[in-house]
Amino acid sequence: MAIDADSRGVFAIAPTPFHPDGAVDSASLRRLIDFYASAGVTGLTVLGQMGEAPKLAAEESLAIVRTVLERTALPVVVGVTAPGFGTMRTLAHEVMTMGAAGVMVAPPNTLRTDDQIIAYYTQAAEALGPDVPICLQDYPLSFSVQISPRVISQIVETVPSIVMLKHEDWPGLEKITAIREREAAGQRRLSILCGNGGLFLDFELERGADGAMTGYCFPELLVDMVRLTSSGRRDEAHDLFDAHLPLIRYEQQPGTGLAVRKYVMQRRGILDSAAQRRPGRELSKWERDEVDFLLGRLARRDTRARVPNP
Amino acid sequence: MAIDADSRGVFAIAPTPFHPDGAVDSASLRRLIDFYASAGVTGLTVLGQMGEAPKLAAEESLAIVRTVLERTALPVVVGVTAPGFGTMRTLAHEVMTMGAAGVMVAPPNTLRTDDQIIAYYTQAAEALGPDVPICLQDYPLSFSVQISPRVISQIVETVPSIVMLKHEDWPGLEKITAIREREAAGQRRLSILCGNGGLFLDFELERGADGAMTGYCFPELLVDMVRLTSSGRRDEAHDLFDAHLPLIRYEQQPGTGLAVRKYVMQRRGILDSAAQRRPGRELSKWERDEVDFLLGRLARRDTRARVPNP
Amino acid sequence: MAIDADSRGVFAIAPTPFHPDGAVDSASLRRLIDFYASAGVTGLTVLGQMGEAPKLAAEESLAIVRTVLERTALPVVVGVTAPGFGTMRTLAHEVMTMGAAGVMVAPPNTLRTDDQIIAYYTQAAEALGPDVPICLQDYPLSFSVQISPRVISQIVETVPSIVMLKHEDWPGLEKITAIREREAAGQRRLSILCGNGGLFLDFELERGADGAMTGYCFPELLVDMVRLTSSGRRDEAHDLFDAHLPLIRYEQQPGTGLAVRKYVMQRRGILDSAAQRRPGRELSKWERDEVDFLLGRLARRDTRARVPNP
Amino acid sequence: MAIDADSRGVFAIAPTPFHPDGAVDSASLRRLIDFYASAGVTGLTVLGQMGEAPKLAAEESLAIVRTVLERTALPVVVGVTAPGFGTMRTLAHEVMTMGAAGVMVAPPNTLRTDDQIIAYYTQAAEALGPDVPICLQDYPLSFSVQISPRVISQIVETVPSIVMLKHEDWPGLEKITAIREREAAGQRRLSILCGNGGLFLDFELERGADGAMTGYCFPELLVDMVRLTSSGRRDEAHDLFDAHLPLIRYEQQPGTGLAVRKYVMQRRGILDSAAQRRPGRELSKWERDEVDFLLGRLARRDTRARVPNP
Repeated sequence: MAIDADSRGVFAIAPTPFHPDGAVDSASLRRLIDFYASAGVTGLTVLGQMGEAPKLAAEESLAIVRTVLERTALPVVVGVTAPGFGTMRTLAHEVMTMGAAGVMVAPPNTLRTDDQIIAYYTQAAEALGPDVPICLQDYPLSFSVQISPRVISQIVETVPSIVMLKHEDWPGLEKITAIREREAAGQRRLSILCGNGGLFLDFELERGADGAMTGYCFPELLVDMVRLTSSGRRDEAHDLFDAHLPLIRYEQQPGTGLAVRKYVMQRRGILDSAAQRRPGRELSKWERDEVDFLLGRLARRDTRARVPNP
Repeated sequence: MAIDADSRGVFAIAPTPFHPDGAVDSASLRRLIDFYASAGVTGLTVLGQMGEAPKLAAEESLAIVRTVLERTALPVVVGVTAPGFGTMRTLAHEVMTMGAAGVMVAPPNTLRTDDQIIAYYTQAAEALGPDVPICLQDYPLSFSVQISPRVISQIVETVPSIVMLKHEDWPGLEKITAIREREAAGQRRLSILCGNGGLFLDFELERGADGAMTGYCFPELLVDMVRLTSSGRRDEAHDLFDAHLPLIRYEQQPGTGLAVRKYVMQRRGILDSAAQRRPGRELSKWERDEVDFLLGRLARRDTRARVPNP
Repeated sequence: MAIDADSRGVFAIAPTPFHPDGAVDSASLRRLIDFYASAGVTGLTVLGQMGEAPKLAAEESLAIVRTVLERTALPVVVGVTAPGFGTMRTLAHEVMTMGAAGVMVAPPNTLRTDDQIIAYYTQAAEALGPDVPICLQDYPLSFSVQISPRVISQIVETVPSIVMLKHEDWPGLEKITAIREREAAGQRRLSILCGNGGLFLDFELERGADGAMTGYCFPELLVDMVRLTSSGRRDEAHDLFDAHLPLIRYEQQPGTGLAVRKYVMQRRGILDSAAQRRPGRELSKWERDEVDFLLGRLARRDTRARVPNP
Repeated sequence: MAIDADSRGVFAIAPTPFHPDGAVDSASLRRLIDFYASAGVTGLTVLGQMGEAPKLAAEESLAIVRTVLERTALPVVVGVTAPGFGTMRTLAHEVMTMGAAGVMVAPPNTLRTDDQIIAYYTQAAEALGPDVPICLQDYPLSFSVQISPRVISQIVETVPSIVMLKHEDWPGLEKITAIREREAAGQRRLSILCGNGGLFLDFELERGADGAMTGYCFPELLVDMVRLTSSGRRDEAHDLFDAHLPLIRYEQQPGTGLAVRKYVMQRRGILDSAAQRRPGRELSKWERDEVDFLLGRLARRDTRARVPNP
């Protein structure tokens, strides 16, 4: 049930539902989990950046993981990024004991050289212990840390518990190919799941990615893309992808994306509220109209986008 | 013929054609200018970042401007960004004397506070003199300088010669609306032309932008978008835009985009070579195949994308 | 007892003492507090960056504040910077109830424009409520957020509970003068306490700063500087400062400074161990020799630097 | 006469003297060169950042190099950093033909990973050809490029024409030791000359640096430090260094330093004017008073700081 180097499919990055007053909305959280299961995802990822994890108190974070694990039998990856290795280890062991499938660790934004990156992950993995499978989050636009294929090779060689790469470099297609070529030459395999809201998922899968780990408001599209691509139905995959691309692009705007995602999930009836914890962001009237317009256009091509009027 | 606050339409950012050995390819440059004219653009912009201007010697830059101005009657904006105001002024006066329609100035990446940004443009405009119309390039992803609507208001108030905004903030839709609302409340008007490869041009025009100033490899699409949107044919505009979006997205990857653009222009028969001056970037075999695939799919919806086999 | 706009003197930034295994060392913490009191500081600041606050669990943070407040009657400022306003408010109210004199809030590194900075502090102060006096931490080298005098003016005008500035801009002398000039013209007064390890404290005090808030390993020097400067003994102040400057400069190296500080405090018999929580940094043999050498030279001029051999 | 891996001593970074109207001041330039020779420097470095090189037109740059080479027999390193390899090669060959001792190349601020840095210097050296000795400028605070000892090892191994390191990392002492340890284990030797205004020159020389390449307004101090340290007079070296440290620290403020340097050189009678080309920076009245005060204090310990009243 733990993630490993052969994990495939779609791990949905789950947003944390809040009531308008900022309290965690557990009813919406349970509804969200059920929705993901019905959408056909392979697993879930909670307590990431897009789950507003840094704004949660420690006990709230654990309560959310508990709720998710009680509600679903899907494998769940938990974000445990923390400034201190002690805090990271404590959280990781608590969630693994509760039944998590693995943990995700992002690099601190102070790392600059290859050696610093390698040292950081070596020490983090040592602090977590050999029994906690790790997903390395590679997201330079947000963390300002650039992880080259060479660095990944070295980490793979020295840190056996790192089994998965959450790939969100941009541009990132050549990186997938570079990693797969190194694996063809003998390097230990990594599961590669792609983020960035799915903006390049069409080609990422063709380059050798194993699936997606992102939070696009139509996870069904991510699931379809993995299925269609892996069964060789290339044109069908691109046709469906292109229908979603105008919305994917809109949702992928930095700083705005989570508000778009929560708004669509509210319109789809999954979340009661699109509220973020403060400091947060809500859509302007212009933005809501644009998202509604994109949903309307999408609905002509994908019936799952037919949502009740706002 | 000079740019002003009412300038509208499409100013194509022209790449600089090079031979494989790095020499400027004047024949391709002339062909490129003729192509832009036939595509219906309103004007041209040369010597920008995407024109590889920083890699040109001073005399080469002037020769390119001269060739362009001799070949076309369209208004031409010239990038004159330079670390020293003296160099900036010299280049600006030379190109204005040669017949340029205005100049473009990007902020140095050392500016941080609002006051520093305002002071920089105030001094730059003073150095250029009152008769040189300026386009302010607002491109935070590349320059790390964030220019808020409030700063634009203050610049507009104190620097009359700044008449145009090359808008490439991301996300940037709310900024267009904010500027237009301030203008509705009495602020002096700016021409707003949008960049970022056109990735949000569909909504940017609806928000009040006057057009595009970018280098997408199908400038015809940009021209169509301005025409269709300004005549209220919203669905037609979005249908056409969505057909191009997969390629727009691919071309807009930072660091890779110019190689995609030149490759497509080579395949369209406009450039003899896709070469960049060193240090540059060329497409991998994988990337070329992906661009070819996108061109093939686009050709089903837009006959202008039917290009001879590579 | 609360900090206010007239607070003066030295608020020592207290490091958090750890045992070599990473556990908080409460005995050293109590010894450290007694040492600060005997050194003549005006107040203490705990849970800042240099207190390794981000590596502490929530309950550990509160336990440290409790220990400090039980041990001393000096005013104590507590760092409460957190990604969410809810967490920030909860921690702030807990420590204020326990008897803290105020809280310190650093800006998130995502803020770029003046308006974003002003909005952030307005909302943070609103979340904390009007009864929590706030010290604004202005440390661009670490946070990548530039706060201009104009922004400070606007914050001062709209956020009454911000009463103190922890000034660590670099260069920063002109900023102090600019703020004091605005105050001479009618702006509400701020207490300005300077950081950066004291590297410019000699002139900062002459420019109008009210004291220091930093963690230099000889807080006695900071206390002396405030006393000598405020009593007009300029040359004496500079003579003493210059004797310490070689060590101040050495301690102020980014990423290395805390290790130097803890090492000297260990050599002075204040801390049992120089250990940092992982990931941390310890001095190399070369660095220890250099610090020892600087201590030896300093001891010729300031007897307080005479420490037992390592 | 060319720089090589055994180059030692002080290469003074020469500022470019300007008249208040922005024209190059050739008379001051010649006086400056004579001053450096009389101060005992080993060589000169021109057209660096602190020489305001980016604000010079191409022909002005060459004229400055010509003036310097005609006036002195000292080896002269010329900054040739440029966005394009073609421009870089042209300038390098012109100045080498004129008699320069080598060239200095800084990394573009877009480099992030170790591999990118190595590739950049490999290609730059290839463009310059095997006969142009290169000094690699390692200045992360200004260029945002971090070059680790491992990267330097790899560059040293593959690029024979890189013979010198301008070391301005901060902190940077451990890096010198790391490089020298690798050399003790067989790596090809590099000349290491230290920058950063000399702020750590006391220990840098003890760690194994070969000298200084920086522009401190008293190059005599840099010369003395190399002489005293290499002859084992450690305490004398530190005594003299410590007397200068208050001014060194003041001059080393980013963005302000060049104005301090030119102001002191004007007061010393070397430059007719402290003017910088626009956009530049001049000292405030407060800053001038502080520098005057520091000069007065320094003059008690070092008679060379006795300058006529301003």
